[in-house]
Amino acid sequence: MSKKGQPKAGFIALQKPLIMPTISNRGQACPPSPIRKLVPFSDEAKKRGVKVYHLNIGQPDIETPENVLEKIRTMDLKVIEYSHSAGILSYRKKLVEYYNRVGIEVSPEEMIVTTGGSEGILFTLMVCLNPGDEVIIPEPFYANYNGFAIAAGVVVKPIGSFIDDGFGLPPMSAFEEAITPRTKAIMICNPNNPTGYLYSKEELELLRDIVKKHDLYLFSDEVYREFCYDGKQHYSVMNLEGIDQNVVLLDSISKRYSACGVRIGVMISKNKEIMSTAMKFAQARLSPPTFGQIAGEEAVNTPASYLVKVLAEYVQRRDIVVESINRMDGCFCPNPGGAFYAVARLPIDDSDKFCQWLLEDFSYEGQTVMLAPATGFYSTPGRGKDEVRISYVLNLTDLKNAMKCLEEGLKVYPGRK
Amino acid sequence: MSKKGQPKAGFIALQKPLIMPTISNRGQACPPSPIRKLVPFSDEAKKRGVKVYHLNIGQPDIETPENVLEKIRTMDLKVIEYSHSAGILSYRKKLVEYYNRVGIEVSPEEMIVTTGGSEGILFTLMVCLNPGDEVIIPEPFYANYNGFAIAAGVVVKPIGSFIDDGFGLPPMSAFEEAITPRTKAIMICNPNNPTGYLYSKEELELLRDIVKKHDLYLFSDEVYREFCYDGKQHYSVMNLEGIDQNVVLLDSISKRYSACGVRIGVMISKNKEIMSTAMKFAQARLSPPTFGQIAGEEAVNTPASYLVKVLAEYVQRRDIVVESINRMDGCFCPNPGGAFYAVARLPIDDSDKFCQWLLEDFSYEGQTVMLAPATGFYSTPGRGKDEVRISYVLNLTDLKNAMKCLEEGLKVYPGRK
Repeated sequence: MSKKGQPKAGFIALQKPLIMPTISNRGQACPPSPIRKLVPFSDEAKKRGVKVYHLNIGQPDIETPENVLEKIRTMDLKVIEYSHSAGILSYRKKLVEYYNRVGIEVSPEEMIVTTGGSEGILFTLMVCLNPGDEVIIPEPFYANYNGFAIAAGVVVKPIGSFIDDGFGLPPMSAFEEAITPRTKAIMICNPNNPTGYLYSKEELELLRDIVKKHDLYLFSDEVYREFCYDGKQHYSVMNLEGIDQNVVLLDSISKRYSACGVRIGVMISKNKEIMSTAMKFAQARLSPPTFGQIAGEEAVNTPASYLVKVLAEYVQRRDIVVESINRMDGCFCPNPGGAFYAVARLPIDDSDKFCQWLLEDFSYEGQTVMLAPATGFYSTPGRGKDEVRISYVLNLTDLKNAMKCLEEGLKVYPGRK
Repeated sequence: MSKKGQPKAGFIALQKPLIMPTISNRGQACPPSPIRKLVPFSDEAKKRGVKVYHLNIGQPDIETPENVLEKIRTMDLKVIEYSHSAGILSYRKKLVEYYNRVGIEVSPEEMIVTTGGSEGILFTLMVCLNPGDEVIIPEPFYANYNGFAIAAGVVVKPIGSFIDDGFGLPPMSAFEEAITPRTKAIMICNPNNPTGYLYSKEELELLRDIVKKHDLYLFSDEVYREFCYDGKQHYSVMNLEGIDQNVVLLDSISKRYSACGVRIGVMISKNKEIMSTAMKFAQARLSPPTFGQIAGEEAVNTPASYLVKVLAEYVQRRDIVVESINRMDGCFCPNPGGAFYAVARLPIDDSDKFCQWLLEDFSYEGQTVMLAPATGFYSTPGRGKDEVRISYVLNLTDLKNAMKCLEEGLKVYPGRK
């Protein structure tokens, strides 16, 4: 036996000649992205000449604002240097202007510009929780939180929200039941990915009370802040009174300005200890992308008309998706108040099988649709098996065609219930 | 007492009104960047009107190639989308062309484009090591490895290289002594940051033998590959025979094309399990920056004359630094074979104090120099107290002025030995 307790090579003739060091436990535990794991099947479908409508990923087709693209085209940098590890100061000052505009008071010192919202989530978990500590997240939740939690050694404790309630905040009793001595934080996404649910001020105040009562952190992912419909207003956790030392706001310009590829987010907190500790991890990775920060700084100057137009477009799309699905036999889709996602219940045996089948074995007039199985957004085994997440990120014509594919697919799917 | 075992607020009148949840242990353990921690003192010096020569950070003043900047200016993207999580395929194919040119055989499937070399290091530690596992690194080493190790819960076991040997590879006996049942990997940086040492093929073959003998991983940070001087050739760990399943290559375009701010690196391995596991973490953070990948793809087309000119420039700079320091009384600087760093021994009591003193209490003709105390590059307490790292990233005139400042500073430094 070797020092690692594995049989040494050579004892059995058929064994591999070299015992390799093993992959880490967290590496094995990290789930593949439920949003991206079906990509090989869509690639195969495209090879067969099938047109695939991508409703599986939060990549909008909306154009990045022209002023942002023009800014990049007219940069006169000679050396693409590292920036400040917390982000270019002029960009952070510009962000203050943006946040003030949406009613959030914040200073440049309370921000670290991150590489996408993703990095902010990882920093936050690394800084605030020890390995083995628990974070409570209402499920279904953005699947990639699992990857960051595993990277940080943090345990996600899901508590259920349900499609029949439109995925509203779970009752406080569910939070109380989930809290253990290892519970350190609650995390939400508002408006929510994958459900599109927009938390009300009243729901957030309930969260504030429980956070205060148990001395917890509250992490809020508000990257879809601007996408609120039907006259509803977004309320930020930054404006909850009495818990400013507990709150971390996670944000990104990816969705707001349809600029996912710039990889620019921001982590914000009034808690100096959180920020100075996060800064050490930020310094280790040197700086966020320079081009993206230049784009982000200009993006704050985007005319208000841009978002007005984008919102009108998303509302039309949402209405098509929700109405189409609710007309389909045995299907149900609550009407989401924000973001550009909806979770629908379908009369199917297994959403993973169904989504794969749509790509592998089905087409309607040479077309099919790619959806994200909702199972990947739940931590509780068995939940989401008859649900899918739909990102309404395609133009109205494509979206209607995609809905038609879904409708026709459901008619002939062998696993229909 | 609260559930966390801390005294509840209110028991003692002078206590803070709210007990906050605590910062994580790893957050507290993460060291501040030794390269950046003196920044407040240089800011103060500048406010007093002192010109500060920055030899503390690996941010070259060399211009990014014009073809790269022009490519960004002429992009015709309308939507800045997420890319493939492993990086844009056309960029990975272009990287194959680059690596073939420098004698490394690799395919696009063996690469994940990362957000700077930094992210590749973090992925590698996360994927290959469990918390508590050990990685052996010859010291002094790039200080930010500490931050990534702490993030991954990995223990760095330093083994000494020494200035009197020019910082060559420690003897194999030192590696053997450092290996424990928890040792999982050896990590090197070649050419080395901070010492500039270029490992020979023979040294790398010794490493290969020990890696094979103990079933270890070998991680090699080769971001300074192109910066080899005096006719010396770089030898990559990718070309070591018999350990291709053990090797991970970490690379970045930051230094090669003086494009640190694009944040584009790459993680390369022939080990499919490492790559498929790293891919799960890569998918969780969605994608590396799109603009930077476009820059990186064009960078491979940079005319060979660009690097020839840059290398000639660096050799002149190195010669000025090394010759100047070796002429100073009581100082010693080995002649580095690569990168753009040198570690020098100075007749001082404490390099942290000295570097701070240069900024806080010293100037020569209205100028001073900012250096990185070498203590931050060692893990062993006490080592590096009479050494500094010098990055020769300024033009020849500035570099000469900086050396003069150092010389004059040493004459009057109160802690001179």
